[in-house]
Amino acid sequence: MKLASLKSGRDGELALVSRDLTRAFALPGTLQTALDHWAEVEPKLTALAAALDEDNVAKAAPFDVMQCAAPLPRAYQWIDGSAYLVHVELVRKSRGAEMPPSYRNDPLIYQGGSENFLGATEPVPIADESWGVDFEAEIAVVTDDVPMGVTADAARGHIKLVMLANDVSLRNLISAELAKGFGFLQSKSWTSFSPVAVTPDELGDAWNGGSIDLPLITTLNGTLFGQPNARTGMVFDFPQLIAHAAKTRPLGAGTVIGSGTVANEDRSTGSSCIVERRAIEVIETGSPKTPFLKFGDQMRMEMLDRDGRSIFGAIDQTITRYTPSPLS
Amino acid sequence: MKLASLKSGRDGELALVSRDLTRAFALPGTLQTALDHWAEVEPKLTALAAALDEDNVAKAAPFDVMQCAAPLPRAYQWIDGSAYLVHVELVRKSRGAEMPPSYRNDPLIYQGGSENFLGATEPVPIADESWGVDFEAEIAVVTDDVPMGVTADAARGHIKLVMLANDVSLRNLISAELAKGFGFLQSKSWTSFSPVAVTPDELGDAWNGGSIDLPLITTLNGTLFGQPNARTGMVFDFPQLIAHAAKTRPLGAGTVIGSGTVANEDRSTGSSCIVERRAIEVIETGSPKTPFLKFGDQMRMEMLDRDGRSIFGAIDQTITRYTPSPLS
Repeated sequence: MKLASLKSGRDGELALVSRDLTRAFALPGTLQTALDHWAEVEPKLTALAAALDEDNVAKAAPFDVMQCAAPLPRAYQWIDGSAYLVHVELVRKSRGAEMPPSYRNDPLIYQGGSENFLGATEPVPIADESWGVDFEAEIAVVTDDVPMGVTADAARGHIKLVMLANDVSLRNLISAELAKGFGFLQSKSWTSFSPVAVTPDELGDAWNGGSIDLPLITTLNGTLFGQPNARTGMVFDFPQLIAHAAKTRPLGAGTVIGSGTVANEDRSTGSSCIVERRAIEVIETGSPKTPFLKFGDQMRMEMLDRDGRSIFGAIDQTITRYTPSPLS
Repeated sequence: MKLASLKSGRDGELALVSRDLTRAFALPGTLQTALDHWAEVEPKLTALAAALDEDNVAKAAPFDVMQCAAPLPRAYQWIDGSAYLVHVELVRKSRGAEMPPSYRNDPLIYQGGSENFLGATEPVPIADESWGVDFEAEIAVVTDDVPMGVTADAARGHIKLVMLANDVSLRNLISAELAKGFGFLQSKSWTSFSPVAVTPDELGDAWNGGSIDLPLITTLNGTLFGQPNARTGMVFDFPQLIAHAAKTRPLGAGTVIGSGTVANEDRSTGSSCIVERRAIEVIETGSPKTPFLKFGDQMRMEMLDRDGRSIFGAIDQTITRYTPSPLS
């Protein structure tokens, strides 16, 4: 089944969306409330979704991605991994640094801000272009309640929804912020999600319980930027990321976990963020060529199934200039 | 006015508490919902609080801190500063490191986990004593909607509630985690809050819009551990912390911001966490004496007004052993 949150108030209005993303059916409540009671709610939603796909829901309306907030317009938790180590290796290599061998055993994950997610087509407001604005195309999953100390094996069963994410990163603020040692705060400002979140069964045999064997396609201003496979090179799969995050505490229903920027060893697949392409340019030519995002630039992320149909709908966003109010 | 969330479901049941913390009156809804509509809700709550303090609310019941969840049992955001630089300086000095001068201009703040806060008297479940379990006694504030790019001056008006926090820290996991560069995840497992959150007017002239001119009293197993003044040595006040956090994004209603461990230059006031006392022991005697917390240890944090009355009620928690279920 596919779920969206139509724009309404702070938490949106839960909607079932047909598999072909053409029709939607609004339901009472929010996605967070559904996740809070997933075991009871899921069978009912599944039955309704089947009826919707068979065109047996009279009240279904055309599905309009412009009406979509993020599936969780605000969440209680967003933790984002960096599971594609080739991305980490490239970025470090471009500045002459080796990747510590421990990175192969101990996943990099940061605690991100979750209280203001952007919908798939909402503009990204940025006050200052010189911050070095970049996108990061990722896969994200949503869990139900995960007990503290969960094993990776048991964590598989806690993945309830899958979506795409665009983790907007302010590259020119990152080094100084990370040097302080407390992780990202100002340098990770916005995160956006695909129009719909889907249950893992919608991925068919492309889902193995931990990662997706399909390319994630990113375009920048209409030109292909990257299409790496989302399984290839994922050194820590989602169950491993969940087990790492839950080592010292439980994770509540509606926790969103990101994969980090999708990247493959095969450079012909392109990149899922600008900083990685710049790193490759530095390695290959000695200097970066591709600029970071400017106001008006448009980025698009989408994943197609093996028959070429969009699974999650597309993230399709433009960078816009934000001017603080004189009163703020 | 003073507000609590009585234990009920995931988000608690909002309650008004009398100024003297003896009586409470449950209200429909949750504290998050009240914060989402604060401008409309606040005048009504204030009127009810006045009636409660005059003993004119028939349905008021005795207030029982054991029934308290955290004022926000889960929140959409928890960001925690380290505003008392003497604490940072001591901890660094004990390991022979200087504090970078930039720390005086650029606040240290980390994005923390917010989806599972503990109530003031709830036990703190820990799987492994060898993680080096420590408390951190802090002040925390709750905001309404804060616009991106807010100035520190304008941020003052966005502080709606004040409370105490215990930021449980796993000291023996911190160095390795921070060395990875992505901040805290496993090493900050639980955060607990005082029984009630209060509007700033409840602090009287001890509140100047940015900090509290009163000691924060911490005891460990019944023995005084520290009572530093919460204004003295707070290098960045709450409006400055808020402005820093809102530089590149807005902060949503119900954002919780912590001060970091309260500490004074005057060592006779003691410490608000064990690691700082250990740092002083290293500086003064060459080695640490005070052990980290063991199962069964009990920590208590409270702040009294100038007449000796408890403002927030006490955080009073015990460390308990957590054993993961064989099925997880």
